[in-house]
Amino acid sequence: MEEKNRQACAVDILDSTLRDGAQGEGISFSVEDKLSIVQALDGLGVAFIEAGNPGSNPKDLEFFERAAKLDLRHARLVAFGSTRRKGIKAEQDANLQALLQAGTSHVAVFGKCWKLHVTEILGTTCEENYHMIADTCRYLTQQGKTVFFDAEHFFDGYRDDPAFAMGALEAAVRGGAACLVLCDTNGATFPDEIADITRQVVQRYAEGEASVQVGIHTHNDRGMAVANTVMAVRAGASHVQGTYLGFGERCGNADLSTIIPNLQLKLQKCCIPPENMALLTPTARTIAEVSNVTLPGGEPYVGGSAFAHKAGMHADGVLKLSSSFEHIHPEQVGNERRFLMSEISGRAAVLSKIKRILPQLDRDSPETLRIMQRLKELEREGYQFEGADGSFELLIRKNAGAYRPFFELIYYKILTGYPSQPGTSASATVKVRVDGKEQLTAAEGNGPVNALDNGLRAALEVFYPTLAKVHLIDYKVRVMDSKSASRATVRVLITTTDGKRTWSTVGVSSDVVEASWVALVDSIEYKLLKDAEDIFKGE
Amino acid sequence: MEEKNRQACAVDILDSTLRDGAQGEGISFSVEDKLSIVQALDGLGVAFIEAGNPGSNPKDLEFFERAAKLDLRHARLVAFGSTRRKGIKAEQDANLQALLQAGTSHVAVFGKCWKLHVTEILGTTCEENYHMIADTCRYLTQQGKTVFFDAEHFFDGYRDDPAFAMGALEAAVRGGAACLVLCDTNGATFPDEIADITRQVVQRYAEGEASVQVGIHTHNDRGMAVANTVMAVRAGASHVQGTYLGFGERCGNADLSTIIPNLQLKLQKCCIPPENMALLTPTARTIAEVSNVTLPGGEPYVGGSAFAHKAGMHADGVLKLSSSFEHIHPEQVGNERRFLMSEISGRAAVLSKIKRILPQLDRDSPETLRIMQRLKELEREGYQFEGADGSFELLIRKNAGAYRPFFELIYYKILTGYPSQPGTSASATVKVRVDGKEQLTAAEGNGPVNALDNGLRAALEVFYPTLAKVHLIDYKVRVMDSKSASRATVRVLITTTDGKRTWSTVGVSSDVVEASWVALVDSIEYKLLKDAEDIFKGE
Repeated sequence: MEEKNRQACAVDILDSTLRDGAQGEGISFSVEDKLSIVQALDGLGVAFIEAGNPGSNPKDLEFFERAAKLDLRHARLVAFGSTRRKGIKAEQDANLQALLQAGTSHVAVFGKCWKLHVTEILGTTCEENYHMIADTCRYLTQQGKTVFFDAEHFFDGYRDDPAFAMGALEAAVRGGAACLVLCDTNGATFPDEIADITRQVVQRYAEGEASVQVGIHTHNDRGMAVANTVMAVRAGASHVQGTYLGFGERCGNADLSTIIPNLQLKLQKCCIPPENMALLTPTARTIAEVSNVTLPGGEPYVGGSAFAHKAGMHADGVLKLSSSFEHIHPEQVGNERRFLMSEISGRAAVLSKIKRILPQLDRDSPETLRIMQRLKELEREGYQFEGADGSFELLIRKNAGAYRPFFELIYYKILTGYPSQPGTSASATVKVRVDGKEQLTAAEGNGPVNALDNGLRAALEVFYPTLAKVHLIDYKVRVMDSKSASRATVRVLITTTDGKRTWSTVGVSSDVVEASWVALVDSIEYKLLKDAEDIFKGE
Repeated sequence: MEEKNRQACAVDILDSTLRDGAQGEGISFSVEDKLSIVQALDGLGVAFIEAGNPGSNPKDLEFFERAAKLDLRHARLVAFGSTRRKGIKAEQDANLQALLQAGTSHVAVFGKCWKLHVTEILGTTCEENYHMIADTCRYLTQQGKTVFFDAEHFFDGYRDDPAFAMGALEAAVRGGAACLVLCDTNGATFPDEIADITRQVVQRYAEGEASVQVGIHTHNDRGMAVANTVMAVRAGASHVQGTYLGFGERCGNADLSTIIPNLQLKLQKCCIPPENMALLTPTARTIAEVSNVTLPGGEPYVGGSAFAHKAGMHADGVLKLSSSFEHIHPEQVGNERRFLMSEISGRAAVLSKIKRILPQLDRDSPETLRIMQRLKELEREGYQFEGADGSFELLIRKNAGAYRPFFELIYYKILTGYPSQPGTSASATVKVRVDGKEQLTAAEGNGPVNALDNGLRAALEVFYPTLAKVHLIDYKVRVMDSKSASRATVRVLITTTDGKRTWSTVGVSSDVVEASWVALVDSIEYKLLKDAEDIFKGE
């Protein structure tokens, strides 16, 4: 593999989303998914992508075959496996043969560093365990591979018997390993312990005669994987393993989307090319999307709420000086600031939102007062606009007289029942009027909301063909006064995309169908409004 | 407030889910929600519950009035507010008056410790800022309150100007504050910095002549709130603030459900009564449910995946020796081990539930195997029986052949539409058969679910007059795969009462009406079953 734009970085990032991340509950990647994620990570500029374990999962060989054809700019692919089994030669081990077949320049192999595991789980002797490590590293090195030795349970093993754990590292160094990756496999270790133990290994190996790199690999069972990784780097580790969104078995692995900016922005340790830092948030969205998980709003740096301000005093502070309540500028990581609308958010935040949409309004304009008044009424009815920017913009425009309706609903009727056809338990009739022309449409759906959604869009597509590209990507129902039982007020929040923009809208009613209807109508009005704006701007 | 079972703990936990947590995006609590969460936290045994900011949110006073009537066993309520505004006397400050009106024995007030905030945000002098802090603490202490001083932005302020930041603490101590809570308000600080700075404050105040307690309050903007809290406790802090599931503005607050077991199980620092440790997981589920958020699977200690093993090698290891891949026993925190690949999850737990209902069944009865099988199928469809004991009992009886149906549904049809009459937007026709007799009923309702609820009960009351006393008291909707948008699978959970018993039932479907129907039918069947049992027992 030739050297292209690969830049030397202070810390080598190894992303294991596709290997250790795939062990997380609910995570399952097709070969296509894996190829997409490799490209996203390469675009971001990580040094290594650990992408499969060909010994335990033969399907991974197909992936490595196809991945070899990708033209990667930054990243090298790494195949992962175990040290040889006890009692056989390395060259006889089928898993090691599978590992070699992956055809990567770099391989990671894990070996036991906790005596308990050697005797109780492997059922062998400490001597044989050392041989298994040394033989494996030596054999793979002889085959031309650069070997990362994953020192499994290193910290537990070190607490139990430091000499035994260090002996495992020594065996890997004897075998020619290029990097000793200290693993907190059970996620049980505290940051100060991680720092102390890593420092000792760094002094002996990285700064010693052997000059072998030291790495860190942590798990989140005590909620400290990110901090543990950072502390290890402060102690001299220069190779960091994790998964991009913290996917992984049990509580997950160290989250690289947090670690990279922590190291690069706070400690000035280069992990990825500096010009790619603004890709951190888009990469998070891409990987979440491919993995079919919702990116948690509170995810540090890259989550949708990471720079969202709700308390009035905080919003006011940020408007005066962003560093007052933000530890970095959101643009540095490709994210953005948001002000949430709520009973505890201040007037200033609402005003700044209004001004972004209609710059000509100020604090005392009659339109502003009307918007504020209407906002209060709607909040009393159970509306909440903090997650519904689309509805909020429509509310502002409608109350400022800066809106003309794109269609008028004449009626809808929905029929649903039991027994029913699977997938079409409801049918809806929708009649709309656009520019004096009426359009009547019928549609089926899986339940009344789905039927209504289908019916409304079918009716309006006749007039607005761009709606064909619009589809809902999220639908949430919140029962507010759940004690009113089946008459309870519900709030429906939907998120819509046209492939280019994504927006959210809200509806409230004691009838779940009606609440959904209100949110659906806002969703379509917002799309038509933005289309009209694009035409106006000549886009 | 009298001393009851309050035990001295090494660390005082202050839970701010209801105050700082309410500033999280998507979090919004009714007074009823807040009262439920107070009771859950008191049951767990935290020392303090910070439950509102009466100065900025007048609705909080209603809460404190009602909360004062609760009979709390462990926790004390804390009201939160700001130091007095600049240029006025403490006793003239409306926010401080609101704070006193909350009627709590303990109050928390925050004041500025970062010079930047004093000059740029408050727009006052450093001297006046110190006076604001000292006056406020003194006034509240004189009013008989125990005062926690939340030293806002303490770590940022200390990095900027240690003397200024320490001066703010000194002012609070002069005013009589009982605890100095060091806040990493922007979440920007690293664990070693937290430890160093906290140690200096502890040496000066907690161990010094003043003998004032030192606390810690961290945010998660760099993904290190838990580690930072633990490091501060190691450095001598003995009061810990956080929110139970890490809710909070931006990336959230320090997560107490992780911190408590970290401190109590690893550092042997008592945070809650030891016999309550197994309530950590149930409390997490309750608070998630009341807050209408999904408890993340990977949440340390309390998440559904926290002890879930997927990789074959890990599952095998755990079966040989649980400590091989688990840092604690899941039962210690009320959680359970799960094996994702092999289908042997929670069998013992389910068996004990089955035996409570049908004591004659044992582990290998064919009925037990059939129940287990059906349970797995339903869980795959999205059912969850944890909050639905009524449906669970019916499931067991039906699959053990210990059930006869009380009625048969022939059909229902629902018509709904817009425009509609207020309060009767839907009508339902329901036809049932009981003992060979058919009954057709029509009913109106506010939305399709309410119409169906009314129609079903009207039809069955003809045969079972005791149903007249039955009514729903809770109705919750949870969208499970929200990415499927309006076709998404929803889980409906309803709670019913007849004035004597209260029970909960569940239904799942991609059609919200059908899911509600399933839960409604279970609700009525359960009532009729219990009535029949009462007759059988001669009650």
